[in-house]
Amino acid sequence: MRTSVTVDTGASRYEILIGRGVWADAASWDGLPRAAHAAIVSNTTVAPLYAGRVAALLQARYREVCTVVLPDGEAHKDWRTLDLIFDHLLAHGADRQTVLFALGGGVVGDMAGFAAACFMRGVPFVQLPTTLLAQVDSSVGGKTGINHPRGKNMIGAFHQPSRVLCELDTLATLPARELSAGLAEVIKYGPIADMGFLDWIEDQLDALRERDPAALAHAVRRSCEIKAQVVGADEKEAGLRAILNFGHTFGHAIEAGVGYGRWLHGEAVACGMVMAAELSARLGLVDRGFVARLESLLQRAGLPTVAPPLGAGRYLELMRVDKKALGGEIRFVVIESPGRAALRPAPDALVREVIEARCGAVA
Amino acid sequence: MRTSVTVDTGASRYEILIGRGVWADAASWDGLPRAAHAAIVSNTTVAPLYAGRVAALLQARYREVCTVVLPDGEAHKDWRTLDLIFDHLLAHGADRQTVLFALGGGVVGDMAGFAAACFMRGVPFVQLPTTLLAQVDSSVGGKTGINHPRGKNMIGAFHQPSRVLCELDTLATLPARELSAGLAEVIKYGPIADMGFLDWIEDQLDALRERDPAALAHAVRRSCEIKAQVVGADEKEAGLRAILNFGHTFGHAIEAGVGYGRWLHGEAVACGMVMAAELSARLGLVDRGFVARLESLLQRAGLPTVAPPLGAGRYLELMRVDKKALGGEIRFVVIESPGRAALRPAPDALVREVIEARCGAVA
Repeated sequence: MRTSVTVDTGASRYEILIGRGVWADAASWDGLPRAAHAAIVSNTTVAPLYAGRVAALLQARYREVCTVVLPDGEAHKDWRTLDLIFDHLLAHGADRQTVLFALGGGVVGDMAGFAAACFMRGVPFVQLPTTLLAQVDSSVGGKTGINHPRGKNMIGAFHQPSRVLCELDTLATLPARELSAGLAEVIKYGPIADMGFLDWIEDQLDALRERDPAALAHAVRRSCEIKAQVVGADEKEAGLRAILNFGHTFGHAIEAGVGYGRWLHGEAVACGMVMAAELSARLGLVDRGFVARLESLLQRAGLPTVAPPLGAGRYLELMRVDKKALGGEIRFVVIESPGRAALRPAPDALVREVIEARCGAVA
Repeated sequence: MRTSVTVDTGASRYEILIGRGVWADAASWDGLPRAAHAAIVSNTTVAPLYAGRVAALLQARYREVCTVVLPDGEAHKDWRTLDLIFDHLLAHGADRQTVLFALGGGVVGDMAGFAAACFMRGVPFVQLPTTLLAQVDSSVGGKTGINHPRGKNMIGAFHQPSRVLCELDTLATLPARELSAGLAEVIKYGPIADMGFLDWIEDQLDALRERDPAALAHAVRRSCEIKAQVVGADEKEAGLRAILNFGHTFGHAIEAGVGYGRWLHGEAVACGMVMAAELSARLGLVDRGFVARLESLLQRAGLPTVAPPLGAGRYLELMRVDKKALGGEIRFVVIESPGRAALRPAPDALVREVIEARCGAVA
């Protein structure tokens, strides 16, 4: 069983292929950009599992195939690691047609994509996401970049992949913590766009955590459909696309505040969604039952819902550099009504209340 | 007297305003992107001369104006210096509407432009070029980037400025060596596009070196016209745009080979143009008189025409990573006939002959 979802931003159009055995199917690789040279970008965890297999598939299509293996984890999503990709490409005779293949999770995809955006001012790339989070969110839509000590994903580019190949079999080897982190982004699509999907997730959560292939296939497909629709309407985040950042304003502050890599991105987003839902309730947009329902589902998914005690001042400081902030005013993705999100500012005093209500005790 | 040239790439359209007093004219700044915040990016040489004046002009239009001062020179066109811009922007409350103003020569423009391309995945920027080279070439057309130890401008983006304001009065304080470097790029437009312009340069060279305002105004305007026409036809260098790189394949090898900053970019391009003309002659495309004429004019402009003795092997190694190379084959911009250029490969043996004929003795 294999399905496809099309992303069409006007300026570019590509397919997301989803299923078991998608990589093994030769047709999945047909029609990719031609070049003398292909480079696989992976990390120390994923490369031993899949890089040899992917290299063999690419050798049938590219004269030279090289693999660059990055250190694993959000803590390495910086210029130093990006430079490893550039060094490797230049040492191995890459040129401005070279195609990059991002083999790994969200960090690998973001960095390989940004490297592709910048190398010789732009080369094509293909996403081969191996985590649930990357398959349902980060590999789709062309957001690429690296972190800055002051803020997450501060340096980057919009650079759409030529294709996304979601091999569902890779989810079988995914650590449970990573699976839960991916479920956070799956759950996200409910409150912002499709409460029927949220009902389905609640019903199928045990199957998802047990990695039932049919349940995972539906979760990935429906997530990609929603994301493709939003990105197609607003590639560069002039407006609508910001709703995909539900939970991310608080979440990015958690990631930067505790130090990149301590919390997984999906974990920080889970906690951030509870905080953003709490804010929505305090703004009178949703009722308490909605907040409790979201919190309970995230807990069932194995995700944290109590924020680290950084102090409200530090949260506000970190959120003021969020990319959605304008002229010093933080803007939050709030739930206007279940299934519909919007971007809006909130008074600092109210945000402080949210943080205090949702933070754990200082250790 | 003030003239304007329009650049229209289809995806973006902007004006180059050229003249004395262009900055002082309030109308020059009308219609730029609105934001709460503007950031001037300059260097230790240019900032003391002009940053205060530009900041005063911007303060009338932006609530907050900050200035980041970079170390001067090609040797600093790297990630470390770029990061100074990001640090400064984040420390000063920049957001995704912040407008960057590149105040300086080609290095400042390339780095401020690349920073604008990457900061929060893209903010607008304005070019305020203060060198002849930047006014006639690098500030126009949206090529931005930084160097890599293995090759010049290897990491970058196409990111068009919102406007280019060529204040000709800044050329009065330009060191003679920098003026000559700029003349190399002015002279370049003759062989590749307009032999009538080459005749004019030959006639007006003394006036140009004496900084005659009318001569400089014509040189900048005609250069920008040619560049705008080429960039408008081929923004991303799918083909035609490569002709603007006449002399640059050899020139970039010189810059990287002797160490960035030892030769000015324009000096390396001057020498590279003689080598590329020599190659064109050896390919039977132009006669010896054409090569001698170009060499003589560059010498009159105060530019070097004898290449540094890096050894042919090192030249070839450096040129193999040139962005125009494909599948390991170096491609050169050659003069097909005076006023017309084209991109083509050449046998290594012939290129070695050119290098040996045009290199100085090993010291």
